[in-house]
Amino acid sequence: MSTRTTVCALLLAAAATVSSVLPAAASDTPPAAGASATSPSWMYRDSHVSAPAALKIAQRTLAAAKAAGQRVSVAIVDRNGTVIAQVRGDGAGPLTMESAVRKAATAAHFCTPTSVLAERLATNPGLRDLPGSLFLGGGVPVPGEPTCLAGIGVGGAPSGDQDEAFARAGLSALGK
Amino acid sequence: MSTRTTVCALLLAAAATVSSVLPAAASDTPPAAGASATSPSWMYRDSHVSAPAALKIAQRTLAAAKAAGQRVSVAIVDRNGTVIAQVRGDGAGPLTMESAVRKAATAAHFCTPTSVLAERLATNPGLRDLPGSLFLGGGVPVPGEPTCLAGIGVGGAPSGDQDEAFARAGLSALGK
Amino acid sequence: MSTRTTVCALLLAAAATVSSVLPAAASDTPPAAGASATSPSWMYRDSHVSAPAALKIAQRTLAAAKAAGQRVSVAIVDRNGTVIAQVRGDGAGPLTMESAVRKAATAAHFCTPTSVLAERLATNPGLRDLPGSLFLGGGVPVPGEPTCLAGIGVGGAPSGDQDEAFARAGLSALGK
Amino acid sequence: MSTRTTVCALLLAAAATVSSVLPAAASDTPPAAGASATSPSWMYRDSHVSAPAALKIAQRTLAAAKAAGQRVSVAIVDRNGTVIAQVRGDGAGPLTMESAVRKAATAAHFCTPTSVLAERLATNPGLRDLPGSLFLGGGVPVPGEPTCLAGIGVGGAPSGDQDEAFARAGLSALGK
Amino acid sequence: MSTRTTVCALLLAAAATVSSVLPAAASDTPPAAGASATSPSWMYRDSHVSAPAALKIAQRTLAAAKAAGQRVSVAIVDRNGTVIAQVRGDGAGPLTMESAVRKAATAAHFCTPTSVLAERLATNPGLRDLPGSLFLGGGVPVPGEPTCLAGIGVGGAPSGDQDEAFARAGLSALGK
Amino acid sequence: MSTRTTVCALLLAAAATVSSVLPAAASDTPPAAGASATSPSWMYRDSHVSAPAALKIAQRTLAAAKAAGQRVSVAIVDRNGTVIAQVRGDGAGPLTMESAVRKAATAAHFCTPTSVLAERLATNPGLRDLPGSLFLGGGVPVPGEPTCLAGIGVGGAPSGDQDEAFARAGLSALGK
Amino acid sequence: MSTRTTVCALLLAAAATVSSVLPAAASDTPPAAGASATSPSWMYRDSHVSAPAALKIAQRTLAAAKAAGQRVSVAIVDRNGTVIAQVRGDGAGPLTMESAVRKAATAAHFCTPTSVLAERLATNPGLRDLPGSLFLGGGVPVPGEPTCLAGIGVGGAPSGDQDEAFARAGLSALGK
Amino acid sequence: MSTRTTVCALLLAAAATVSSVLPAAASDTPPAAGASATSPSWMYRDSHVSAPAALKIAQRTLAAAKAAGQRVSVAIVDRNGTVIAQVRGDGAGPLTMESAVRKAATAAHFCTPTSVLAERLATNPGLRDLPGSLFLGGGVPVPGEPTCLAGIGVGGAPSGDQDEAFARAGLSALGK
Repeated sequence: MSTRTTVCALLLAAAATVSSVLPAAASDTPPAAGASATSPSWMYRDSHVSAPAALKIAQRTLAAAKAAGQRVSVAIVDRNGTVIAQVRGDGAGPLTMESAVRKAATAAHFCTPTSVLAERLATNPGLRDLPGSLFLGGGVPVPGEPTCLAGIGVGGAPSGDQDEAFARAGLSALGK
Repeated sequence: MSTRTTVCALLLAAAATVSSVLPAAASDTPPAAGASATSPSWMYRDSHVSAPAALKIAQRTLAAAKAAGQRVSVAIVDRNGTVIAQVRGDGAGPLTMESAVRKAATAAHFCTPTSVLAERLATNPGLRDLPGSLFLGGGVPVPGEPTCLAGIGVGGAPSGDQDEAFARAGLSALGK
Repeated sequence: MSTRTTVCALLLAAAATVSSVLPAAASDTPPAAGASATSPSWMYRDSHVSAPAALKIAQRTLAAAKAAGQRVSVAIVDRNGTVIAQVRGDGAGPLTMESAVRKAATAAHFCTPTSVLAERLATNPGLRDLPGSLFLGGGVPVPGEPTCLAGIGVGGAPSGDQDEAFARAGLSALGK
Repeated sequence: MSTRTTVCALLLAAAATVSSVLPAAASDTPPAAGASATSPSWMYRDSHVSAPAALKIAQRTLAAAKAAGQRVSVAIVDRNGTVIAQVRGDGAGPLTMESAVRKAATAAHFCTPTSVLAERLATNPGLRDLPGSLFLGGGVPVPGEPTCLAGIGVGGAPSGDQDEAFARAGLSALGK
Repeated sequence: MSTRTTVCALLLAAAATVSSVLPAAASDTPPAAGASATSPSWMYRDSHVSAPAALKIAQRTLAAAKAAGQRVSVAIVDRNGTVIAQVRGDGAGPLTMESAVRKAATAAHFCTPTSVLAERLATNPGLRDLPGSLFLGGGVPVPGEPTCLAGIGVGGAPSGDQDEAFARAGLSALGK
Repeated sequence: MSTRTTVCALLLAAAATVSSVLPAAASDTPPAAGASATSPSWMYRDSHVSAPAALKIAQRTLAAAKAAGQRVSVAIVDRNGTVIAQVRGDGAGPLTMESAVRKAATAAHFCTPTSVLAERLATNPGLRDLPGSLFLGGGVPVPGEPTCLAGIGVGGAPSGDQDEAFARAGLSALGK
Repeated sequence: MSTRTTVCALLLAAAATVSSVLPAAASDTPPAAGASATSPSWMYRDSHVSAPAALKIAQRTLAAAKAAGQRVSVAIVDRNGTVIAQVRGDGAGPLTMESAVRKAATAAHFCTPTSVLAERLATNPGLRDLPGSLFLGGGVPVPGEPTCLAGIGVGGAPSGDQDEAFARAGLSALGK
Repeated sequence: MSTRTTVCALLLAAAATVSSVLPAAASDTPPAAGASATSPSWMYRDSHVSAPAALKIAQRTLAAAKAAGQRVSVAIVDRNGTVIAQVRGDGAGPLTMESAVRKAATAAHFCTPTSVLAERLATNPGLRDLPGSLFLGGGVPVPGEPTCLAGIGVGGAPSGDQDEAFARAGLSALGK
C-alpha cells in the first residue's frame, strides 16, 4: 500500500466520522422536480438539448434564413447558461454572434420568447440591465419539464420578427 | 392575419420543405449513455451536484481547513464547467478563489485528482497550457456515471496535499 | 396591506420559526469605528460576514426559494466588493448568477435594498450606469457600523419582491 | 554567411525595389495572391469555410468521437480568427470548448496540424507563449490557396492523437 | 442647405481635390456573389478592405480631422467583425478608440451610417442594447456586393456630424 | 562586426533608399500645438500629470472626503486614457473604484466636469453609451494646452456634487 | 513515516474532532484569529493598510526609484486581493502596472517576498501557473497578525532586487 | 448662493486648511529628465510617435512583408502602453494581431529588441511570465530620450528574424 493510498484511506475514514453537517439532510431535498427517486439526494438531474440536436437546430435556422435572403448567426444556450452551439452564418454582420447568444440566454432564462419579453420593458424597463440579457426579438425557449431546457437565439435579420421566425424554424428540428 | 403571422407561417412552411440534412436523424442518437429510453432523442440528460449539496461540501471543506489552521477558498464546478458554488474563506489569500475554480474544473475535466494530474506533466508538459486548467494538488473529482459529475477545488494551504485533504473532507459530505 | 408586504411578512415569519442560528447577535458591534485604539495609525480595521455565515445565508436563501417553488442564485458580496460566496441554485436560469452578484454589490454600496434604489432611478436615472450595479429588487444590505458590512443578492424569481424576500430570509440567518 | 543573414539580405533587396506606397497606389497591389484581377486594388478577396460546411464538419467530428466513446467539443476557426462554429459535445469536460477554439486557431495560423507544431516546441519553446495558441494535438488546418482557409480543433479525448483523428474525420466532410 | 450638409460637402470637396488614390475603382465588383462558379460548394468567398487601403483610409481621416482642428481616433472593421486597422490620433481623448471600433462595427453591421441608425432609436430603442454597437454619428459603411464590406468609425470630434465627415473623407481614399 | 550587426546595418541602409512614403511629410506636421520646433516631425509631445502630483491629488481628495465624513475612491486618468493613480478609500463601497476611473476618463475626454456633461444627456442621450464613460458628477478635468491634460474622478459620496467637491479639492493640489 | 504522511495524519485527527457545523454555530467560531471576543460570531474582523498609508508607501517607493534613476510603477494589494492603490510612475514601461499588482498579490498571498518565492519555483515549478501570480522579485508582504495584511509590488527596474529595494523603501513608510 | 456652490466653497476652504502632506512639494520634483524648466513641477512631459508616423511605419512594415511573400500584422505601442496603431495584414493568421501588440509592448518596455530579450530567458526564465509580454523576435524599440518612445511589433512570418526585419523596415520610416 503506497503512502499516498494510506493517506487517502485515512482521510476518508476520518471524514466519515464527522457527523452529518445538516440535520435531516435527506428530507431537505425531497424527490421533487429535478431529482429522480433513485438518485442520491445530493444529485440534481436535468435535461439538455444534445449537441447533435443543436446542430440540427442550427442547420434549419440557417437554411430558413438563407431561403429568406437573410444573413444571420445562431446560438443554442442551455438552461444553465452553457453555450451548446453557436454558428456564424455566411456574411452575417459583426454584431450577430454575441446577440444570438444573449437572445438565447434571455429566452432560456425567462422561458419566454424575447419578442414577448421586449414588450415587458414598457412596464419594467430595469430588466434590460440584467447582465447577459438582450430584449430584442429573435430568441425562443425550448420547452421542457420542470422548466424550459434551453434557448435558441438568432441575430442578423432587419427585424426581430424575422430573427424569431428563423429561430422557430430551428426549433422545429426537435419536432416541436 | 397580421404581417408578422404571415411571415412566420411562410417561413415555417419553407423550413418544413427543407430536406433533412442528415439521413436517419433519429437513429443518429441511440439510447446510449446519457439518454434514457424515454427521453426524446434530442435530449441529453445528466446529473449535477445539487446546490444544497455543494454548500455542504463547502462547509465541510472550510471546517477541515480551519481545524488545521489554514485559510482556504473552495469551489465546486460542474462537468460542463458551471460554477455551482464558490466561497472565499476568512483570511484566505488573493490567489485562492480563482485557483480553487481552476483546480475544480481540471479535476472535473479529467475525472482525476489534480495531484495525480500534476505528475503527468512530467511526460506531457503541454497539458498545463490548457486554458482554464491548474495542475496543482487540491482538486478532486466527484464520481458518477457515465462520467464524473463535478470537481471540488481548494486553494490556500501551504501544500497541495493539504488542499486536497480539505477537498476530500468536503467530498465526504456526499457520503463518498 | 399590499401583496408585497404580505409576501415579505410571511417569509420573514417563516424564517423566524427556523431557530435563530446565532444567539446574542445584536449586542456586539464594538466601539471601534474603523480604527481601534491599539492599532497603528496606518491600519484600517473593518468587519466582514464570515465565510461560514455566508454559507448559512446561502442555505436559508435557497431553502426559502425552494419552499416558494422558485429557482434562484445567491451571492454575498463584502463592503469592499469581494465576493464571499456565490451559489447557483438548481435549475436557476442563465442570467441569475451575475445578477445576484451585482444586486449584492449595489445593496452593499448604498447600504440600501435595491428595491428602494430602483425607485430612485425615477429622479436620478444616471445611477443605472454605475459599472457593476444592478437596480432591480433582490439585493439587501447587511447592517453594521460604521457602515453596512455586505450585501446579499438574489436573482431568478419572477419579481424582484420575491428575490428580496429570499434574500431577507438569508439575512435572518445572522439573527437580524 | 549564415542563413539568417541571407534571409535578411534578400528581404532588404526586395524591399528596396518596392515603389513608394502612395503615389503609385494601383501598382502597389498587383494581381497577387488574394486579389483577383477584376477586383478594385483596395479589395482583398479570400475564402472561408461556409457555415453549413462548418456544421457538417462538426457533425462528423462529434459522430466519430461518439463512435469511439469519447466526449469532445469542436470548433472551426477562420484564417482571420473568426469562429465559424463551436459546439460543446454531450458530456464534454469544462476545458474542452476553449481548447478546441485555440487548437483550431493555432492550426489555421501555421497551416499545420497542432500535433506537428507541438514537436516544434522542443526547438522553439517560446512559441507556446503566443497569445491564443495551444500546442496540443487535435487541431488540423483546412487546406486552400494561397494559404490555408481555416482550422478545425477538437478537445476532450485522453490523447491529442484521438482528438486529431476526430478533427480529420470532420475535415473529410469537405471531401478532403 | 443645413450646416451639416455644408460641412460634409466642403469636406468631400476637399477630399476630392486630393488626387484620387485609386483609378478606376468603381468598375470592378465581379459577378461572384459570395460563391464563384469554380469554388467548392463548402467555400464561402468574400471581399475585404485590404490592409494598405485601410491605412490610406486612416490617413485621410486623420488629415481631415487635423485640418478641422479636431483630435480623433479611427477604426476600420470588416463585415465579419475583424478589426483591420485602428489608430489613435494625436491628442485624442480616452473614449475615442473603442468608440471608433464600435461605430465601425455598427455601420458595417447595418450597412448604414450610424447617424441614420441613431435616428432609428426613436422607434426602436432596444437596438442600443446590441452588444458591441454604438449608435452615435461617426460610422459609415464601405459599400460592396452582396453586402457592404466594412465600416469606418471615427470618434473624438464634438459632434457626430463632424466625426462622420472625417470618416467620409477616409472613405474617399477608396474612390467612393 | 557580428553577423547580427551586419544584418541590421544592411537593413537600415536598404530602408533608407526607399523613397519617402508620403510626399512633403515634414510640412504635413507643422510646428503646431503638440510638436515643438526642435522635435522630429514624427514625434508628438504632450504633457501629463506626474505620478507624484497624482498622489498629492489623491491625498487631498481623500482628506476632503474624510473631513466631510464620506468614504470615496479616487482616480487620475491621463488624456490618452492611462490610469496614473487610483486609490480605494477606507470603507468605500464596491462600486467606487471603477466609477472613479470612468468619471476621470469622461472628464478628460470632454475637458468638462461630468456634472455639466450629465446635463447634456437631456439633449443627447446617446452619449451615455460611449464605452468607458460615466455621466455622473464627480469628474473634473485638469486644464492644459492645447487640450486638457487629465481627469480626476471620485465616487462614493451620496451625491455627485459632493464627489465633485472632493475632486476639486484634489485639483487644488496643483495650485489651480 | 514521510513528512507528507505525517502532515495528513495530523490533519485527519484534527478534522475528526470538528463538531458538526450547524447546531453549535456559536462555539464554531471561537475567539480565534480574526474574530474579536465582542464581535458577533458571524463576523470576521481583519485589518488593512489604510488608503492614506498606501499613498505614503507609494510616495516613498517612487521617490526611492527616482533617486536610483529608475522608472517604476507600484501597487498595494490587500490580503483579500483588493487593490488599495496603484500608481504608474513617470516614464514607466507598459508592463509595469499589471506586474506590480501581481507581485503585490503574490507577496500578500504567501506572506513572503517574491524574490524568495521565485527560488521555490526550482522545486515546485507548477506554482507559476497560479492565476494572478508573478514570481519575480519586487513584491514584499506587509506583516501583521494573524497573517500578513497586504503586499507591495514594484515593477520597472532592470532587476527584481532593485524593484524589491524600492518596495522595502515604501514599506518603511509604515515604520517597519 | 446655491446649495451646491456652498458645499463646494466649504470643501475647498476645508481643503485649503489641510496641511500640506508632503513638505517642500515643489522641490520634490526637480527639473529632471521628463520635466522641462518651464513646465509646472506637477507636469511630466514626454514624446510619442505621432499617429501619422505610426501609419507610415505600418505601411513600410506591410510593404516589406509583402515583398517577402509574408502575411503579417503590425502594431505600434507607446512607452506608456497605449496602442497608437495596429493593422491586420491581408491573409495574416489568427495569432498575429495580439502577438504584434505584445512584441511592441515588450520592446518598448525594455527598450531592446525582443530577439535579444528572448535570449535572456535562458538566464531569467521567469521574465516570460510578465503579463502582456511576448519574448519572440519581431519587436523593436523606437529610440528616444530619456528613454525609448515606443515599440514596433510584427507577427506572422515563419521566423522571428523575419518579423524583426519587417519591423526594422517600418522603423526606417522615421529616418532611424
